[in-house]
Amino acid sequence: MLIRCVVYEGGRKVADIPKEEIHLHLGQPGRFVWVALRDPTPEELEEMRVQFDLHELAVEDARHGNQRPKVEEYGDCIFAVMHTVELEDKELVVGEVDVFVGPDYVLFTRQRTKLGFSGVRDRCEREPQLMKAGPGYVLYALMDTIVDRYFPVIDQLEEDLEEIEDRIFQGAPARKNVEDLYALKRKLVVLRHAVGPLHEAAGKLYGGRVPEVVIGTQDYFRDIYDHLFRINQSIDSLREMLTTAISVNLSLISVHENETLKRLASYGALVAIPTMIAGVYGMNFDVMPELRWAYGYPATLAVMAIADGYLLYRFKKGGWI
Amino acid sequence: MLIRCVVYEGGRKVADIPKEEIHLHLGQPGRFVWVALRDPTPEELEEMRVQFDLHELAVEDARHGNQRPKVEEYGDCIFAVMHTVELEDKELVVGEVDVFVGPDYVLFTRQRTKLGFSGVRDRCEREPQLMKAGPGYVLYALMDTIVDRYFPVIDQLEEDLEEIEDRIFQGAPARKNVEDLYALKRKLVVLRHAVGPLHEAAGKLYGGRVPEVVIGTQDYFRDIYDHLFRINQSIDSLREMLTTAISVNLSLISVHENETLKRLASYGALVAIPTMIAGVYGMNFDVMPELRWAYGYPATLAVMAIADGYLLYRFKKGGWI
Amino acid sequence: MLIRCVVYEGGRKVADIPKEEIHLHLGQPGRFVWVALRDPTPEELEEMRVQFDLHELAVEDARHGNQRPKVEEYGDCIFAVMHTVELEDKELVVGEVDVFVGPDYVLFTRQRTKLGFSGVRDRCEREPQLMKAGPGYVLYALMDTIVDRYFPVIDQLEEDLEEIEDRIFQGAPARKNVEDLYALKRKLVVLRHAVGPLHEAAGKLYGGRVPEVVIGTQDYFRDIYDHLFRINQSIDSLREMLTTAISVNLSLISVHENETLKRLASYGALVAIPTMIAGVYGMNFDVMPELRWAYGYPATLAVMAIADGYLLYRFKKGGWI
Amino acid sequence: MLIRCVVYEGGRKVADIPKEEIHLHLGQPGRFVWVALRDPTPEELEEMRVQFDLHELAVEDARHGNQRPKVEEYGDCIFAVMHTVELEDKELVVGEVDVFVGPDYVLFTRQRTKLGFSGVRDRCEREPQLMKAGPGYVLYALMDTIVDRYFPVIDQLEEDLEEIEDRIFQGAPARKNVEDLYALKRKLVVLRHAVGPLHEAAGKLYGGRVPEVVIGTQDYFRDIYDHLFRINQSIDSLREMLTTAISVNLSLISVHENETLKRLASYGALVAIPTMIAGVYGMNFDVMPELRWAYGYPATLAVMAIADGYLLYRFKKGGWI
Amino acid sequence: MLIRCVVYEGGRKVADIPKEEIHLHLGQPGRFVWVALRDPTPEELEEMRVQFDLHELAVEDARHGNQRPKVEEYGDCIFAVMHTVELEDKELVVGEVDVFVGPDYVLFTRQRTKLGFSGVRDRCEREPQLMKAGPGYVLYALMDTIVDRYFPVIDQLEEDLEEIEDRIFQGAPARKNVEDLYALKRKLVVLRHAVGPLHEAAGKLYGGRVPEVVIGTQDYFRDIYDHLFRINQSIDSLREMLTTAISVNLSLISVHENETLKRLASYGALVAIPTMIAGVYGMNFDVMPELRWAYGYPATLAVMAIADGYLLYRFKKGGWI
Repeated sequence: MLIRCVVYEGGRKVADIPKEEIHLHLGQPGRFVWVALRDPTPEELEEMRVQFDLHELAVEDARHGNQRPKVEEYGDCIFAVMHTVELEDKELVVGEVDVFVGPDYVLFTRQRTKLGFSGVRDRCEREPQLMKAGPGYVLYALMDTIVDRYFPVIDQLEEDLEEIEDRIFQGAPARKNVEDLYALKRKLVVLRHAVGPLHEAAGKLYGGRVPEVVIGTQDYFRDIYDHLFRINQSIDSLREMLTTAISVNLSLISVHENETLKRLASYGALVAIPTMIAGVYGMNFDVMPELRWAYGYPATLAVMAIADGYLLYRFKKGGWI
Repeated sequence: MLIRCVVYEGGRKVADIPKEEIHLHLGQPGRFVWVALRDPTPEELEEMRVQFDLHELAVEDARHGNQRPKVEEYGDCIFAVMHTVELEDKELVVGEVDVFVGPDYVLFTRQRTKLGFSGVRDRCEREPQLMKAGPGYVLYALMDTIVDRYFPVIDQLEEDLEEIEDRIFQGAPARKNVEDLYALKRKLVVLRHAVGPLHEAAGKLYGGRVPEVVIGTQDYFRDIYDHLFRINQSIDSLREMLTTAISVNLSLISVHENETLKRLASYGALVAIPTMIAGVYGMNFDVMPELRWAYGYPATLAVMAIADGYLLYRFKKGGWI
Repeated sequence: MLIRCVVYEGGRKVADIPKEEIHLHLGQPGRFVWVALRDPTPEELEEMRVQFDLHELAVEDARHGNQRPKVEEYGDCIFAVMHTVELEDKELVVGEVDVFVGPDYVLFTRQRTKLGFSGVRDRCEREPQLMKAGPGYVLYALMDTIVDRYFPVIDQLEEDLEEIEDRIFQGAPARKNVEDLYALKRKLVVLRHAVGPLHEAAGKLYGGRVPEVVIGTQDYFRDIYDHLFRINQSIDSLREMLTTAISVNLSLISVHENETLKRLASYGALVAIPTMIAGVYGMNFDVMPELRWAYGYPATLAVMAIADGYLLYRFKKGGWI
Repeated sequence: MLIRCVVYEGGRKVADIPKEEIHLHLGQPGRFVWVALRDPTPEELEEMRVQFDLHELAVEDARHGNQRPKVEEYGDCIFAVMHTVELEDKELVVGEVDVFVGPDYVLFTRQRTKLGFSGVRDRCEREPQLMKAGPGYVLYALMDTIVDRYFPVIDQLEEDLEEIEDRIFQGAPARKNVEDLYALKRKLVVLRHAVGPLHEAAGKLYGGRVPEVVIGTQDYFRDIYDHLFRINQSIDSLREMLTTAISVNLSLISVHENETLKRLASYGALVAIPTMIAGVYGMNFDVMPELRWAYGYPATLAVMAIADGYLLYRFKKGGWI
Repeated sequence: MLIRCVVYEGGRKVADIPKEEIHLHLGQPGRFVWVALRDPTPEELEEMRVQFDLHELAVEDARHGNQRPKVEEYGDCIFAVMHTVELEDKELVVGEVDVFVGPDYVLFTRQRTKLGFSGVRDRCEREPQLMKAGPGYVLYALMDTIVDRYFPVIDQLEEDLEEIEDRIFQGAPARKNVEDLYALKRKLVVLRHAVGPLHEAAGKLYGGRVPEVVIGTQDYFRDIYDHLFRINQSIDSLREMLTTAISVNLSLISVHENETLKRLASYGALVAIPTMIAGVYGMNFDVMPELRWAYGYPATLAVMAIADGYLLYRFKKGGWI
């Protein structure tokens, strides 16, 4: 579905145009067309391919979706694939943004994303002095927005980990901790696969030989590269802490088992000792003087209580109970 | 066994020819021969070696089979080895495809593969405008087909993992989970060894210096490279999740052991307490007033029941039972 | 907040100046201005941007803080971000230092750091022969100070590990050890993220092409690079030992569990044997000669005691108790 | 000990010669001398050093043995060290082969190897058209033979792993499995240290700049490189599966422990319940009506049997027994 | 402390000289001075700095000690830092050797080393034909000696591991094994930090561009590089086996726990069965015919014995006891 189709000149908006008129505005210095599509149909993509003379393979990639994040050059056109990662009820939803950037056009399509990108257009239109740099700047603005949206996701995952850590060390039920650690790991893998290849791809847009469309905006792309580096670093930390947390959790499960065993043994002893004593005085020997004593019974009960009391004291002191 | 042997010119099929006539069609601009063999005998390979003047070492590799996936140049001939991976009753079967590509021929052989490649030929013949690019395009079409067939395998392995995960967290018997995780690991290693080296080899067919036969089709090979990158990434994710799943499973086994221990201890206590009380009233002291009471016996039974009831309540509350 | 703003010429201090006069001292050979800010406000940064004609993106990074350690070139200006790591009650506090270095100025800002850097200025002023090398030498002096402050942190973490190791092998409560190991791991990750990227960035300041401002001070930066290398190596060792310590700790927990189990079994046996014997003589058979013997009871008690004594001896010898 | 010393010309054998005459045949185009030594004494090596004018350091390496596999150039001489790995009673025995290859000689020495290399000479003499390529081809033939002998070793290790896997999953005694996994790991490390460096070294003999003696035989060395790559890959797979097998084995040990615990608890319950009931009717209360019933005793026994029968049914159903 | 200070010319010793005269012998072709210091004081180093005109930073590194192993160039001077690793009561002691090598001097200092290096000088003086190569050869001789001294350390660690392995598989107390494995790991980390960076640094002294002083002795440094490679490989093997040993040990602890559990259960059963039977005949039913039988008691004892005998047989057969 077409969202908007606008012509810019010298960084300023000229007019909204119907998509059929796009070709009228191409090839004029300082002027470019910015088209935005949402969940584009194959027909729409085909139409755009013709209008902008895009490469067949790039369009096919956009049609199939499900590409890995990348930045590719086809002649003087840059084809960029980026993944959006959005939080929905603490679950990660991955969407895809494909951008074709040529000397006089930007074609933007998004699929399976909840949040829109109209804010990017507003921001660009408010800064004509930057927008003057052309389609390369628009690519930067879009990429910057997508990358900025990774930060709250990372923050959420870090919070998740902290919460699980707290629960681990406070002795919450281990089974739930294990499940949550695993779920977090899964999210991390998803996020890493959105960020990692994009980080690598962003490296192609500054330093050394860069595609012509982004020549004037290299420093901006270095900035994006830097942000992705930082996100990657956070992901690495999370991974490492997660691995450690899983093994630490296993250790604590064993520690807990040990404690259970000890407590169990302690309570067992508190019952076994009186049972043994009772067993002794349940024997049927003819000659067992204690049985005849007037206070034999209470004395025996007392012995039992004292024995148990002593054990209890020892167990408490030793931290077994 | 020879499957087919066809001459193409300008991207269009000219004629099926007997293999003895191959040399008549070589060396003519715009014309090339495409031969397909299945489980070739040493004699057939030798015949082809002579017809196409192939390098001895490459033919020997094809004869032995069991090569690692690779793309090698011998003069102006490309020798490509690829592994097919097919699902058969959830087991992975690895086959091998060897392709010799020269300026005027494509020699294709397949071994131990269930699925054929006649669809590739049909597809190529339907697109003469692409086929015009020559043997390099045929190599692309074959490689693309092989790579595309990896995707359902990856999907199957991902489903397998999800199924095991579900079972792990629902507390299915741990022994079976462990076995399945191990079997999955094994499959993953098999798949990785088919995909990894091919990914690396595909990198030689685009960007920088490439063999002459593929010069006009570089963008296509970049596309294949990308697909392989994505498959590799999926394999990496699977590996990582699998490793995590194994350690998580171990954690859960320990958790389960802990729970077993607690339940065991609880039931033990429910039996031990009455046994102890009974032991006490089984003692033979002359003076044990309770024994003389008319309701001593039912009162004792009641005490036992109450003690057990209390314990049961505590155990249930503490989640031990 | 402005800390100081001083003009140097030929390595010697000329005068403290108000920040409004900075531009009067720029562009004069052999002369440079060194400004230090603490927790700078956006307004202050903006003012500096104008005075020194800094790049917008670099200033924005400084404004936001929270950048990864890096060394970037903007034209003839170096923008360096470094993290300070300070110990506060055994916790690590990460601060940030941003330095802009141009041919005739050094702009230094620090955020969230406890310790100041006035000592660096004093040291530089005492060595005019080195200071003569210009702003590049000031950058070295600042970086050197920050890097030197990592050493006590590393030392502290190494001491922490040693302390935990001691406790692990002396059988201290495993739960605490696990918690401490995890906390140490967390600190290590924090430190690594300060040191790692800086190490990499420092590599850009010596050997091969270096930014013009540091050309005369390359050997100094190699020295810093070396120190960072050593710190990195210590961090790697710590990581490796920590991972080993965690798994070793888990082993010891299992060993301890084993011992608990054995001790438990031993004590259980000491109670079960007399109970069984007592049970036998509690049977009500008419004909049980032992029951009639005058010394049957003490003899039985003696048998019990001997049996237990023998078991106790065996258990002690076998190391079970 | 000298094995043989033969002169070749144009790929064909000219004559066996005594080693004292070697220098008479050097320096003649198309002619080269091939000497084979076994467990050479320092004196023999010294003699060869003089005859062929070898570099002191290379000869010293050959004298000491125990070098890592490598390919080094000393002037126009290649010095290659390779490790043979032979199976002896399922144990790995590592031998060493040192080869000096110059423009007009091949000096081959072997130490601690069981199998000889006379087959290589036979094969070379049967193919004079290849042998014509000179000493480089002989180096290839020797290397190829050594590398081919790694394959059965790899196969053996793979069989070993499969056998252990089977035993693991069929519940064989864990202790033996652990020992065998460890032994397999040890072998793997040995094999890897023979193959890994050789793989790397072989890469120097094809592509880019190669030593002059092997210029005409590059494709052959690429073939060897490929074989080593494949062996390396197999070793990597084995390593990975082995690591997984060890952790899977640990999981199964825990699973088994869990099962033991449950079975133990079940049998314990089957004994504890009757004991408790018997305890109750062993109490000495005056008023216990059941004790007076004529069928009280068999009824109680029946209750015990029924209780145990029910438990047994429950345990079997729950998979505890 | 100054050890010796000698002038060499053309590879032969000219004279011992007092250190004050050093400058008289510098700058003469074919002549160089070799100074050896032990635990040098800052004053001595300062004096040397002046005599040889060394770079301030290098001298400062030597003064502080505690540098990582490295090879640095300062103009035409090489500054090399190496770590000695010595065994003292099975503990590793790390010392440091710093060497300054210029076109006409070698300044050698050692700190915290037990073994001296006078043997190196003796060896060099015995081989004037090699020594003629100048200070570069002396550097080689020193480095070679240090590297050779790593071998016995590696051997010791390998022996340690083997000894621990034996104990692990022979069932020695697990706690001691764990401690020893950890201690070995620690030593390994120490050794790796001495060897790893030196290996890397040695790579700068042969092949490609090398410092001028070592130009004639490149092959020798390649030899050292090779030795370090081999040591590194041994360290890697040790690390890998150690990690495996730790996890294998954990498995065996669990196996042992399992066995303990089974034995415990077996003995428990042997006591519980007679106790249950005794409990039954301890019941007070009026009608219990067995109690009246003349041989009821011995028969019951026999039943107990038979039951236990049968269980014992079963347990032994099942390997539980």
